[in-house]
Amino acid sequence: MIEKVDVAIVGAGTAGLAALREVRKETDDFVIVNKRPYGTTCARVGCMPSKTLIAAANAFHARTSMATFGIDGSDRLTVDIPAVLARVRRLRDDFVEGVLKATDELGERDISGHARLDGPNTLDIEDRKIEARQIILAPGSSPIVPKAWQDLGDDILTTDTLFEQQDLPRRIGVIGLGAIGVEMAQALARLGLEVHGFDGGDKMAGIADAKIAELLRDGLSREFAVHLGANVDLARAGDGIEITWDGGRVFVDKVLVAVGRRQNVADLGLETLGVPLDDNGLPDVDPQTMRIGDTPVLMAGDANGANPILHEASDEGHIAGLNAMSPDPERLERRIPMTITFCTPQVASVGQKADEIDNCLTGEVDFATQGRARVMQENFGLLRVYAARADGRILGAELAAPAGEHLAHLLGLAIARDLTAHDVLRMPIYHPVLEEGLRTALRQIAKALPPCSVSDLADCGPLHVEALE
Amino acid sequence: MIEKVDVAIVGAGTAGLAALREVRKETDDFVIVNKRPYGTTCARVGCMPSKTLIAAANAFHARTSMATFGIDGSDRLTVDIPAVLARVRRLRDDFVEGVLKATDELGERDISGHARLDGPNTLDIEDRKIEARQIILAPGSSPIVPKAWQDLGDDILTTDTLFEQQDLPRRIGVIGLGAIGVEMAQALARLGLEVHGFDGGDKMAGIADAKIAELLRDGLSREFAVHLGANVDLARAGDGIEITWDGGRVFVDKVLVAVGRRQNVADLGLETLGVPLDDNGLPDVDPQTMRIGDTPVLMAGDANGANPILHEASDEGHIAGLNAMSPDPERLERRIPMTITFCTPQVASVGQKADEIDNCLTGEVDFATQGRARVMQENFGLLRVYAARADGRILGAELAAPAGEHLAHLLGLAIARDLTAHDVLRMPIYHPVLEEGLRTALRQIAKALPPCSVSDLADCGPLHVEALE
Repeated sequence: MIEKVDVAIVGAGTAGLAALREVRKETDDFVIVNKRPYGTTCARVGCMPSKTLIAAANAFHARTSMATFGIDGSDRLTVDIPAVLARVRRLRDDFVEGVLKATDELGERDISGHARLDGPNTLDIEDRKIEARQIILAPGSSPIVPKAWQDLGDDILTTDTLFEQQDLPRRIGVIGLGAIGVEMAQALARLGLEVHGFDGGDKMAGIADAKIAELLRDGLSREFAVHLGANVDLARAGDGIEITWDGGRVFVDKVLVAVGRRQNVADLGLETLGVPLDDNGLPDVDPQTMRIGDTPVLMAGDANGANPILHEASDEGHIAGLNAMSPDPERLERRIPMTITFCTPQVASVGQKADEIDNCLTGEVDFATQGRARVMQENFGLLRVYAARADGRILGAELAAPAGEHLAHLLGLAIARDLTAHDVLRMPIYHPVLEEGLRTALRQIAKALPPCSVSDLADCGPLHVEALE
Repeated sequence: MIEKVDVAIVGAGTAGLAALREVRKETDDFVIVNKRPYGTTCARVGCMPSKTLIAAANAFHARTSMATFGIDGSDRLTVDIPAVLARVRRLRDDFVEGVLKATDELGERDISGHARLDGPNTLDIEDRKIEARQIILAPGSSPIVPKAWQDLGDDILTTDTLFEQQDLPRRIGVIGLGAIGVEMAQALARLGLEVHGFDGGDKMAGIADAKIAELLRDGLSREFAVHLGANVDLARAGDGIEITWDGGRVFVDKVLVAVGRRQNVADLGLETLGVPLDDNGLPDVDPQTMRIGDTPVLMAGDANGANPILHEASDEGHIAGLNAMSPDPERLERRIPMTITFCTPQVASVGQKADEIDNCLTGEVDFATQGRARVMQENFGLLRVYAARADGRILGAELAAPAGEHLAHLLGLAIARDLTAHDVLRMPIYHPVLEEGLRTALRQIAKALPPCSVSDLADCGPLHVEALE
């Protein structure tokens, strides 16, 4: 017997739940199918537990500047790793519980199991077959562990297992220094572990700007061993693991593999849709509608391989839900790019990256001598803003800076609104704040622009603002 | 003999130095006259030393959440107050030195002494008489100590003397809970002092919004004794001071008086200008030119009584300098209002205040349950945004919130650019960040606005953004 519904959603993660909210506004005739465990990647194994671990690590690391402030006894502080991890899980359980509420009351419309497409309108869910007018696929992604390393068993950690540890060993390797790898490597180092970090590339945390990448490398290298351009092999060595690379080897107790996430599409039946699939088995998805070609199938979140970060997954689920319920395509404009890595200094990219822009104006500030940064003992960082040479329109920015997440949002609003350096310099900037550093960078851009004519001076806020120092 | 110069500037503080920068672009024929001590209010006794003290106090206070994070031994941390104060002075001296560079190389054009107007074109500086085509007055302000309390001698502190202390006593009273009073009361409490804070009004830190004022009172009351609506008397009592008010009395060792600052105009000769003066002896100053009536005298910074905060003083010096050098008035648009108090939670007002707006839409977020705030153990705060009922244009905001200074700047840019709640909701907001709290408040506003029609949906970013949750 084939069951029929108007809309079937596969995946109860961030994208699936966002789609569900839109679908429910229009119909009760839906199912949402989810493979265990429930709880979004973000709440269960991603953003939330990682940030909770980082907060504890930073709290312990704060002891290193206490003597400078005039505080004694910091050498007697110790960290109770099992207690740190227990807190991470306690808060994580709270966040997961919050997410579960979204599906708790759905009764039979909430189906637990693995869903597989059988053509564009049908899902096989174990023994059941469900036919749907529209299908929204949001099965998410999973950490990649290269096959050769899977034999190493429990000594290989991913973000799926890291936060489940009851304790942590003395020495850890971190393979992959993208956002997750950098965040966890630094946090574990700040919790007192000996950390060896590796990446095959020459930059970390997704940074494109060479100057910022270099500053970040300098900063992180003070806290853990950073090996870039290093392709590693892992092998069992006694109770631990030997990491070898061109030019070196080191022994660690466990290895956190953070080399990326793979879309959960291996057994999704995408090949039954009759559309071309790429080498990763992914179909082409329209980023403004989330629809796969002209099929009744939409694909949102990490699974489509486009932009695996929470706020984009949420937007995509929303767009997919709207389009599942609309007779005509709803084409939505997507947001400007933004990524943040929550290490110290915080790393962010907003808008276009340095390597995507030709011949722009660049404004920069070094936080080493910035007033507020010095007061806070956080005077390490660099921010670079890229602006159009013609009119000073801000095109993008990268930074590794104190309060970087906040500077990134300010820049994000400026870029999303197509503002120029002059425009932003009209805002009030208080004193003493880190935003004064951003102002320094914007003034450099403003100074490189053609000045307003003297006769226009009275109406020409920007020139005046630019002239202030 | 009367010396003649093109421009004379009185005061080498933030406003005077900003004016100097503009004047020097046009002429070398100037003098700048400054009464000792040199160094701006900000660097010497204001923003910088206070923020340095606060940073140390917060670093020590961080011990109170260490056990929650899983860190042991926080009960063994002690604070060395003389060391804290020594660091404050060390950094302050650095900041002052930076400021002194602006006048160091001026030679004879830098005059140390008290300047007094003798008519609109003349300054008496002790034995000298200087005639100037234009005069810029920027003599600053000084802490007010009511006459009745001046007999209490060294046990009365102001920000002029607080940072000069070699040590601090066990008990301190803080009279006046505006920005400075609140900042110092909390910082001293966090350094382990028993603090008793008093204000004659019913709100603190310049907050107008009753809900935020109440939350701030609740929060600060956990750290020190807060007495609002309390008019106090001080009297010598043994080695210390007795503070009495309607309904109570308490003994403290010293009292920090933070009841406001008085413009340094008592002996400035303003009465020789032939323009009307108000009850405080202040002339009317055009805020867009900084000129006093149609005289050749301009007045910038704290001394004009308008807006005694650094970034405004800097703007005013700039405007005064431009106008001193320009044959025609240069009328400059001023910035939207912004004030920040660097207590915890940080307090800020941006744009119009609640009591200045009739019938607006209000969006609000309570940080008690906000994800990132919980992760950081900083989940205490409230943010309220006021927007126009017609179109959702953001008019103002007040907040007492974690990372409040940064949220204030984001709102500052939005308000300075006349953005609506819909406009701001188009920006990327990462996860998990405190800016998501601001988004919650903006979505409340967006939901109260007329929705876009369904047929416009595809082009109607705002509705979609608003609908996300």
